[in-house]
Amino acid sequence: MLFLIGLGLSDEKDITLRGLELASSADLVFLEAYTSKLYKEDLKALEKLIGKKIQRADREFIESSKILLYAHKHNVALLVPGDPMIATTHAELILRAREEKIETKIVHNAGIMNAVLDTGLQFYKFGRTTTISFWEGNYKPTSFYDVIKRNKKMNLHSLCLLDIDIVKNRYMSPNEAIRRLLFIQKQRGDEAVIDEVVVCSRMGSTKQNIIYGKAVELQNLAFGNGLHCLVIPAALHDLEREFLEQFRVKQ
Amino acid sequence: MLFLIGLGLSDEKDITLRGLELASSADLVFLEAYTSKLYKEDLKALEKLIGKKIQRADREFIESSKILLYAHKHNVALLVPGDPMIATTHAELILRAREEKIETKIVHNAGIMNAVLDTGLQFYKFGRTTTISFWEGNYKPTSFYDVIKRNKKMNLHSLCLLDIDIVKNRYMSPNEAIRRLLFIQKQRGDEAVIDEVVVCSRMGSTKQNIIYGKAVELQNLAFGNGLHCLVIPAALHDLEREFLEQFRVKQ
Repeated sequence: MLFLIGLGLSDEKDITLRGLELASSADLVFLEAYTSKLYKEDLKALEKLIGKKIQRADREFIESSKILLYAHKHNVALLVPGDPMIATTHAELILRAREEKIETKIVHNAGIMNAVLDTGLQFYKFGRTTTISFWEGNYKPTSFYDVIKRNKKMNLHSLCLLDIDIVKNRYMSPNEAIRRLLFIQKQRGDEAVIDEVVVCSRMGSTKQNIIYGKAVELQNLAFGNGLHCLVIPAALHDLEREFLEQFRVKQ
Repeated sequence: MLFLIGLGLSDEKDITLRGLELASSADLVFLEAYTSKLYKEDLKALEKLIGKKIQRADREFIESSKILLYAHKHNVALLVPGDPMIATTHAELILRAREEKIETKIVHNAGIMNAVLDTGLQFYKFGRTTTISFWEGNYKPTSFYDVIKRNKKMNLHSLCLLDIDIVKNRYMSPNEAIRRLLFIQKQRGDEAVIDEVVVCSRMGSTKQNIIYGKAVELQNLAFGNGLHCLVIPAALHDLEREFLEQFRVKQ
């Protein structure tokens, strides 16, 4: 059997009782360590909690479906930071497992789309989510800008995840993301697409921080370590505006 | 202090360790019982787990902010099925609490937007979420249809929540929702907006069920009790198609 178990966003205490029970019942426990990460990953604490040795699973181990060789013979738990079904790679793993007649269980948990609701922006007013990717050599995608622009036109907020390159241990900073967006906006000759921005830092952790202001005001601020994401808000309801004002950047 | 704690979707075992710890530390524990519900709500089991008496909080208790009278003097935990920040009413409660200088803590959990990823439909391909509302007298909204139509035009999936009327103990069935959508489509003279449908039943529970097929095929099927939602998929990626085929309705 294959258990895909979400860990939530902060540390080992974000696991659900169901997830913990299932992980503890597994013969082998792996921690997926490349699509996301816990804010405070303490492998020892997690091992103590589950009562099992935990091995780190890299991209190759998951994507080559090597993990399924184990799942044929054993109960294998794959622990995933956040919600385990956000990353396409895990949906694919579940599908391959079922094709190979391996029984699967999925235990969801809060992911970034949950934590970002702490901005007070309403779930029903979000449009499509996008990822602001690194530019590498000639690979200079701008499609994330188009997603934001289309969402905004329909008066929908945009959740923008920031690119992670685990191999190079690179995490895009909010600053780089905001500057990239302003750059593309200028290139396109647009004006009000990237106006106000909400920078969400270390969401779900005890060090969570939300800052709201004009993109030009925020682009040079220091947001600290950990994972970040942005929300580009569309027109705000009264409650949303009132909520966001709590996070207005200090001048 | 006010603790807003998500319970997840199925039963008492979906609470996180962090949520459980916080609820156990509270002086007063309330269960919000009108925006959503656990698939298998067992108040006794939840009380035993938390080690506290749990009182049910109705709409008036939350929306009149009566709960804050308690939170001024005590540590009050409000347990909420699913993710606690999906419902606007909870965002408003948090805001009012902070205005009254009451310290707040939010513990997220998996909500329907997490569980629905078990369809294999990719998070990044969902557009705006909508709710298919009951029609009452002259109140016959069709705006949910427009949301689906716009999403589909942009090649985005639509998560459609189904209306709940706790007071009348009414839950919209997938059948009613599908027929309503087909009715509006006909009225508008549209054709391919409501074509295929994914019916998601009791998501997050051990009785979870997903059925995929043409709207006309599904409109008369029996989907059982509990909460349901629909997804109206847009064009599918190969992996999404392969994943959904697992759930194809048997002819």
